[in-house]
Amino acid sequence: MEETMNFAIIGTGAVGGYYGGLLCRHGFEVHFLLRGDYVHVQEKGLTIDSKDGSFRLKQVNAYCRASDMPRCDVVIVALKTTANDRLAGILPHVVKPGGVVVALQNGLGVEKTIQEIVPDATVIGGLCFLCSNKIGPGHIHHLDFGSVRLGQYRADGAAAGITPELRQVADAFSAAGISVDLAEDLALARWQKLVWNMAFNGVTVVLNATTDQLMADPSALALVRGIMEEVVAGARACGHPLDENFIEIMIAATKNMVAYRPSMMLDFEAGRELEVEEIYRLPISMAAAAGVAMPRSETIALQLEFLDRRNRG
Amino acid sequence: MEETMNFAIIGTGAVGGYYGGLLCRHGFEVHFLLRGDYVHVQEKGLTIDSKDGSFRLKQVNAYCRASDMPRCDVVIVALKTTANDRLAGILPHVVKPGGVVVALQNGLGVEKTIQEIVPDATVIGGLCFLCSNKIGPGHIHHLDFGSVRLGQYRADGAAAGITPELRQVADAFSAAGISVDLAEDLALARWQKLVWNMAFNGVTVVLNATTDQLMADPSALALVRGIMEEVVAGARACGHPLDENFIEIMIAATKNMVAYRPSMMLDFEAGRELEVEEIYRLPISMAAAAGVAMPRSETIALQLEFLDRRNRG
Repeated sequence: MEETMNFAIIGTGAVGGYYGGLLCRHGFEVHFLLRGDYVHVQEKGLTIDSKDGSFRLKQVNAYCRASDMPRCDVVIVALKTTANDRLAGILPHVVKPGGVVVALQNGLGVEKTIQEIVPDATVIGGLCFLCSNKIGPGHIHHLDFGSVRLGQYRADGAAAGITPELRQVADAFSAAGISVDLAEDLALARWQKLVWNMAFNGVTVVLNATTDQLMADPSALALVRGIMEEVVAGARACGHPLDENFIEIMIAATKNMVAYRPSMMLDFEAGRELEVEEIYRLPISMAAAAGVAMPRSETIALQLEFLDRRNRG
Repeated sequence: MEETMNFAIIGTGAVGGYYGGLLCRHGFEVHFLLRGDYVHVQEKGLTIDSKDGSFRLKQVNAYCRASDMPRCDVVIVALKTTANDRLAGILPHVVKPGGVVVALQNGLGVEKTIQEIVPDATVIGGLCFLCSNKIGPGHIHHLDFGSVRLGQYRADGAAAGITPELRQVADAFSAAGISVDLAEDLALARWQKLVWNMAFNGVTVVLNATTDQLMADPSALALVRGIMEEVVAGARACGHPLDENFIEIMIAATKNMVAYRPSMMLDFEAGRELEVEEIYRLPISMAAAAGVAMPRSETIALQLEFLDRRNRG
């Protein structure tokens, strides 16, 4: 289906606008679902300022109602997980029979939510290593990185391997210039990403500090490391054995990064609801059910819940 | 010795200025050690604005060097614990042979430090339930509370009971209008106070919230309760059995309090070094040595260390 593959982008923000924009620029048929920016994008298109080359899409297929969209081969979910209660009213209108849904979202549980809404669809999880921001209506600023790790979801949590559907989506992304990496075991990949996300997303918010500031302070680094150890123990208890040296690899990689504001910090600064449920609460619950406590992570989660409520008044 | 009892106040700030001022007003001979405020207090005395009645001491015995002070029957240590490295240069000059040292300080370990400096002195620990602030040179603002819980130190950590020295100090405090409560077991009293202090002192700083704001939020209250549970478990492991319902008593008492900024929050706002060592690190170490981990408390300690370093540049 690749030649004529069409895409729906559910949520045209920092993530959906960027990747959807790249697919569109390459020549794929792409349909964008929007809310607040609908009128602006309908009239003026999308603008992507990118360190890899800026571009403007003067005319795009924009929608404000899912029921107006054509059914698509590949539906990319790029909402914040805090908006996932909207998916039940969207996906059944947009996914083509036998189609694929790709969840470009953080944390655990998003593929399960999607699969329950569209039981016949192939569900793929996508882990974005992307530093991008929406800086105005239909205006995306891509600062750094951009690769996507894709893995196919299985309801039983086992490794699905590299399936034909996974390969097709990966080929389309690659054709559009997106760096893609395939994961045979999506659940393992999700827990791997949580090692970094649970350590840095919340702590940058609570301490109002960028990653480089945390890395430079011995106490903050000890806290980051302590949380990472909890996540590795939780992942193992849940049947996802991470490598012994995974934490040190993450620490070393973060040392080499520029000053970085994780997505949760950007959400907090913009007054958006924080993704505490998917990034903290669900992994903590799953680990607890498997007999492993994560008290450091839970401390961060409780702090985030307090700060989030105060931040949004 | 009561009738002619004289006092030295080591550290004439929010705590030492207030209690020393009350003792002085009552007619006791009181000698105040100061640093930055010395010249001002030497010239203009002390001013105490208090909800229980304001007063001014136009002339007080002020010193900027311990070696200039007379030896006193009762030496009250009211420095921040972060300044305790100064005590070795002060106490040997000021404590009368057979005298008493009263540590009006937070956390664990302060009596041990003092006893090692003046091995022949009777050391008493004082737990202040005081909301007071230094608002200018020699100018103390007493906002609320003010009672002191006194207990005698024993190097072996056992309960010393109500000794004659303890009774004498208590009588002098009472005579000066200070509400006093005697503890037979100082170590138990210190751990009891830590239940509140470890929960609220650090969390108010990290979340920049007063006690009433924490109490009103379900997540913050769950965090407070989780830390309190750790402290109770730590105290028990260290041989200090707190009552089953002690946490609920603390929670209920805090619900009835007005919006409160614990001493650590005041220290943070004033750019002073935080008492992380005595209020967090030492109890955590003692519990760990007794086989009990305190990961929530340690998370707060690490966050405080980061914030403290950033706050003081």
